Amino acid sequence: MLNFNIHVPTRIHFGRGKIEDLGKELLTYGNKVLLVYGGGSIKRSGLYDQVLQVFQNNDITHVELSGVQPNPRISSVRQGVELCKKHGIDLVLAIGGGSTIDCAKIIAAGASYDGDAWDFFTRKAKINYALPIGTVLTLAATGSEMNPNAVISNDDTKEKLGTGSPVLIPRFSILDPEYSFTVPPEQTAAGTADIMSHVFEQYFSPTSGTFIQDRLAEAMLKTCIHYGPIAIAQPDNYEARANLMWTGSLALNGLLGAGKRTDWATHDIEHEISALYDVTHGLGLAVLTPYWMHYVLDEQTAPRLAEYARNVWEIEESDDIIAAQTAIKKTAEFFKSLNLAGNLKEIGVQQEHLTEMAEKVTSRGPLGAFKKLEYQDVLNILQMAYDGSKPWIT
Amino acid sequence: MLNFNIHVPTRIHFGRGKIEDLGKELLTYGNKVLLVYGGGSIKRSGLYDQVLQVFQNNDITHVELSGVQPNPRISSVRQGVELCKKHGIDLVLAIGGGSTIDCAKIIAAGASYDGDAWDFFTRKAKINYALPIGTVLTLAATGSEMNPNAVISNDDTKEKLGTGSPVLIPRFSILDPEYSFTVPPEQTAAGTADIMSHVFEQYFSPTSGTFIQDRLAEAMLKTCIHYGPIAIAQPDNYEARANLMWTGSLALNGLLGAGKRTDWATHDIEHEISALYDVTHGLGLAVLTPYWMHYVLDEQTAPRLAEYARNVWEIEESDDIIAAQTAIKKTAEFFKSLNLAGNLKEIGVQQEHLTEMAEKVTSRGPLGAFKKLEYQDVLNILQMAYDGSKPWIT
Repeated sequence: MLNFNIHVPTRIHFGRGKIEDLGKELLTYGNKVLLVYGGGSIKRSGLYDQVLQVFQNNDITHVELSGVQPNPRISSVRQGVELCKKHGIDLVLAIGGGSTIDCAKIIAAGASYDGDAWDFFTRKAKINYALPIGTVLTLAATGSEMNPNAVISNDDTKEKLGTGSPVLIPRFSILDPEYSFTVPPEQTAAGTADIMSHVFEQYFSPTSGTFIQDRLAEAMLKTCIHYGPIAIAQPDNYEARANLMWTGSLALNGLLGAGKRTDWATHDIEHEISALYDVTHGLGLAVLTPYWMHYVLDEQTAPRLAEYARNVWEIEESDDIIAAQTAIKKTAEFFKSLNLAGNLKEIGVQQEHLTEMAEKVTSRGPLGAFKKLEYQDVLNILQMAYDGSKPWIT
Repeated sequence: MLNFNIHVPTRIHFGRGKIEDLGKELLTYGNKVLLVYGGGSIKRSGLYDQVLQVFQNNDITHVELSGVQPNPRISSVRQGVELCKKHGIDLVLAIGGGSTIDCAKIIAAGASYDGDAWDFFTRKAKINYALPIGTVLTLAATGSEMNPNAVISNDDTKEKLGTGSPVLIPRFSILDPEYSFTVPPEQTAAGTADIMSHVFEQYFSPTSGTFIQDRLAEAMLKTCIHYGPIAIAQPDNYEARANLMWTGSLALNGLLGAGKRTDWATHDIEHEISALYDVTHGLGLAVLTPYWMHYVLDEQTAPRLAEYARNVWEIEESDDIIAAQTAIKKTAEFFKSLNLAGNLKEIGVQQEHLTEMAEKVTSRGPLGAFKKLEYQDVLNILQMAYDGSKPWIT
């Protein structure tokens, strides 16, 4: 186990009707709120009206930034920053999933910075200050509601890049599983795959002696495998939605990565895909993950992949390689059972872009920690995932 | 799953040499520190000198309260409160295990209160303010380093009572597993039992639909079962000490109990024992736990106890009652393998006090949530644990 620091100060208000805590939380930070959200779903569900009622009951004035897209754009961020500066905003409140929250985070940082917010992604500027951020979560997926990270896309440069700062961690997040009842099956599936991918990126590590972290990771994987299909079949199953929502937050709040080197190669590759094709992040991850697992499987990585096989999938097989291969197959089958695509063609990726993506993602050096990936490795993974060759089926 | 709020703002500095972060943390809160510790072990290990060096390097003045005992006394608290008031202390720094930390917490609360600190336990006063608290942990056990609770004993009234307040949660805790290398085998065993008991109290619950919490609990139990014996056999095994130390903090920081009704009957009963006989808390818990499990096992509780059997002990048995009985036996055998006592006689409890303890602990109403326990139930458990009858062996 490596040394680590961890600090997760987000106040979580979890459960049915927890919107009742919103007013008190907001007033801690001021009475001028920038409300950030995506499309009309929060209006259809009634959540928008509930939040406006909270504002009214607590004499809170607000300005709105709506239309935040999945794979949120720096252009939305810039609009939000302008609103904050113009109206003297005290707190940025995101209502939605990870895209909306990520957008709100960078707005909050940009509002405390004189230059352009894209500077935070090109490393031209560091995020040292930000307005307070609060969230009302409507989708179990990214964990952004309890962590300091944000990923933003730039249409001009065709880049999708991440940044983070302790000042970006939400001060509070309201997690009412009922708000996710209206999430459609394909988004529920992609969200489940996203959560699992966050766990995988931290579970598959070259660091040894992290027994507690690894068992916690397996606990979260089992929860996704158990409840993902239930939430898809029964969208208003509170138990399923609640377990997925809380697991989504815990999967990327620092707990699983504490004391380990973490991988993130699959995420890095996926970001290139969604930067070019604007695909749903969790969908891209679901396609790539089994191919990544297959490609990194060797004598050295087999024991950990076999541990995954035995502890998560209850595969009783003493040979590590065979156990690992069986688990990879199970993983691919699980994603397929959620109706997620099985290859990159299906999600619109074109053969001619594979080399470009592999070049771009490795331009800052090799990827990963569980196993280091160079340009050719990434291209091989992309090619297999493009073909949908399912090489684990022997 | 029930609604919950969770907020764990403690900054954790985990790993070898993390004492290097102490100076910066302290200076956040001021430069007058009350240093609270127990006996000479921190002097023998060199930790005391390291901390004094940090004080010197950072121009921090300090006052000391030493001699804090296991099952810390309200008399120590009163001394500490007086020192805080007299010297205008900015922060209370505990160096030690749970007893020292609990003592420091109530000192910090008492320093911001005009009356006597025992009022916090008799419910005469609520803890609304406290000086900031920091800790340097030397023993994996109570989790006090990352939670808002404290338990204090009163020699005059022969009571051992708990209290808690969000203001008591340590601002920072330094967790260096190497500081626990010198913990003797019997304390390591008792600490392991204490951690496991914290998990059991939250795992065995009448609340359904808490899949993620339950899998996380099992992860922590497996860690204790795996590393407890290793830490006893090899006191300077870093991996074992690190896994136990981090698990101890996670086991009682709110994560496992979030969204559930929790039990705590075993803890309540044990507090009566250690109030009268001053036994090590974890030792008392290890004796009581299998008897409590045996006593509460019925048709209604069997499925959860059988889940424990299958998921933690890998017992493949389809009958819930038999699976549960086997797990209870395994639990008792595990504690025995750590050289912990198997009955109350061995730890000095006298038959004549059993009724008194059962009366006292149920005087404020029945105990527990997994199964409610009245006076006669508690007396039955105490009597079985006194006799050491091992009724689970059929």
